[in-house]
Amino acid sequence: MSISIDVIKEAQQRIAPYAVRTPLLRLQNLDRYLGCRVYVKAECMQLTGAFKLRGALNKMLSLSREELDRGIVAASSGNHGRAVAYVAGQLGTSAVIVMPRTAPAVKIENIRALGAEIVLCDAAERFEVSARICAERGATLVPPYNDPAVMAGQGTCGLEIAEQLPDMDALLVPVSGGGLLSGVSEAVRTLLPSCRIYGAEPEALPRYSESLAAGVPVKVNRGTSLADALVSDTPGPLCFPVVKRNVNAVFPVSDANMLKAMKLLLTEGKLFAEPSACIGIGAVLQGLVPVQKTDRVCFLISGGNAGLEQLEVLAGI
Amino acid sequence: MSISIDVIKEAQQRIAPYAVRTPLLRLQNLDRYLGCRVYVKAECMQLTGAFKLRGALNKMLSLSREELDRGIVAASSGNHGRAVAYVAGQLGTSAVIVMPRTAPAVKIENIRALGAEIVLCDAAERFEVSARICAERGATLVPPYNDPAVMAGQGTCGLEIAEQLPDMDALLVPVSGGGLLSGVSEAVRTLLPSCRIYGAEPEALPRYSESLAAGVPVKVNRGTSLADALVSDTPGPLCFPVVKRNVNAVFPVSDANMLKAMKLLLTEGKLFAEPSACIGIGAVLQGLVPVQKTDRVCFLISGGNAGLEQLEVLAGI
Repeated sequence: MSISIDVIKEAQQRIAPYAVRTPLLRLQNLDRYLGCRVYVKAECMQLTGAFKLRGALNKMLSLSREELDRGIVAASSGNHGRAVAYVAGQLGTSAVIVMPRTAPAVKIENIRALGAEIVLCDAAERFEVSARICAERGATLVPPYNDPAVMAGQGTCGLEIAEQLPDMDALLVPVSGGGLLSGVSEAVRTLLPSCRIYGAEPEALPRYSESLAAGVPVKVNRGTSLADALVSDTPGPLCFPVVKRNVNAVFPVSDANMLKAMKLLLTEGKLFAEPSACIGIGAVLQGLVPVQKTDRVCFLISGGNAGLEQLEVLAGI
Repeated sequence: MSISIDVIKEAQQRIAPYAVRTPLLRLQNLDRYLGCRVYVKAECMQLTGAFKLRGALNKMLSLSREELDRGIVAASSGNHGRAVAYVAGQLGTSAVIVMPRTAPAVKIENIRALGAEIVLCDAAERFEVSARICAERGATLVPPYNDPAVMAGQGTCGLEIAEQLPDMDALLVPVSGGGLLSGVSEAVRTLLPSCRIYGAEPEALPRYSESLAAGVPVKVNRGTSLADALVSDTPGPLCFPVVKRNVNAVFPVSDANMLKAMKLLLTEGKLFAEPSACIGIGAVLQGLVPVQKTDRVCFLISGGNAGLEQLEVLAGI
């Protein structure tokens, strides 16, 4: 089923008993730094610490008991894996999470604590490895973004934003494969037609900027970024056309501005988010986003799964 | 005028154009650590980073233009001073802030950035020094807690909590001189008569625990604590009877549990608060507070004025 406001509303009904309606906060202390009226959707306060719970829930609640009992496999840089491991526990099945060796220690530990089996590999081979494990065990793959049920699940975050801030002028969403941005943009574009919707991605991995310029999904060289949750080198084929249709622009952001944003959100906004989640604020700091002083601008803070050791790098910024 | 729900409501009207109605957040991720349903009143997101803005506003908005023009003096461990300096700027007057030498660097810098004159002294002599400066310059003193207008201003935070969480079972409030606890407890005791109201203070400076046991305000020995915002060695004479009348108990909390609480709030709650603001959560971690799994317990997170360097101490906890 292709994405639409109706399937997103169905997803909202389905996941409601298991997910939190996260707060949308007005952070007036950030206005003078960002040159607009600042709001955040605090998905860092979601259960499992990231929006990924929504998609994993919507997908796994759609599986049959028999499918669930054969086990679940997911490839993930961390947040999707934690969500899948958590939902597996809630639904009484087991999960194997295939993670890049470069994932932060805190993400690996949080998944292990949920009782999931962890397989570490190179980021580039994580989909191949997870497909092989599925084939060997007859387990079901829960894709991190390129799946209609996952996209609809992430879209529930956009539905909430549109309900919580109906006079929003602009929305900034972190993007990797595009599961979150496709779902959220579909909800917001439908409910708030005149709202500007922007994506933000690491400039070292500009898969959406380049694909939108080309008009088709392209694969970019695997650059290195501190945005450990935004590691896809190509847009999801199902996500790309939705993003292309709904989104005004996607901005490539430097690691330096992303970290400045993380520090600003922490010290002035009092919210602890992971680096990737701060990239939309980084886009504004980098001067990429057209915003005015009176604009109500919402930043989707996608997750908060960072360790205290990751704060050390902020001291020198 | 003595404290009452009416003067607190008047204060709310008076300060509304200048202060933020801070969010009251449900932090479900903390439930399993604290054994209850966890809510926080996020005064760390207040303008100037702490609840102190409320009292300073209510006091200074009650002064005549002539009084304002002769200048303002405040003695403060940091947060009250920042609030007074900010309000002085808003109202077009100047402020002298008398601070203990031991205040965190970030608090001193934030006050200096607001254009206030800073005088450093020993914590024990800050009231004497500020009284002398007032006498010399004909300036008006804005006391940090022992003042009816300041107490009523802080009470607006309690008014908001009672409106935002009317089915609250218990409330935990940090206490030092008692300006916040007296004002908040007056509002909450009046509006939610069956809610349990608790204070939490450093066990190294148990001025309320000992005074409540004695039945009158007593001065305690000046112990050393990391709660840099909770440094009073005696209850405010005006605050004490209000606290005695309204509050179920005040708990003395160790620095170790306060820091554990700060870490928990940061890593699991995703909120960055200063150590003193976390002392209520520390009281629960220390096993001092009678809470049940189904209780809705609200923690007043009084401020967020901490520097990143203060996070280093959390790594070892």
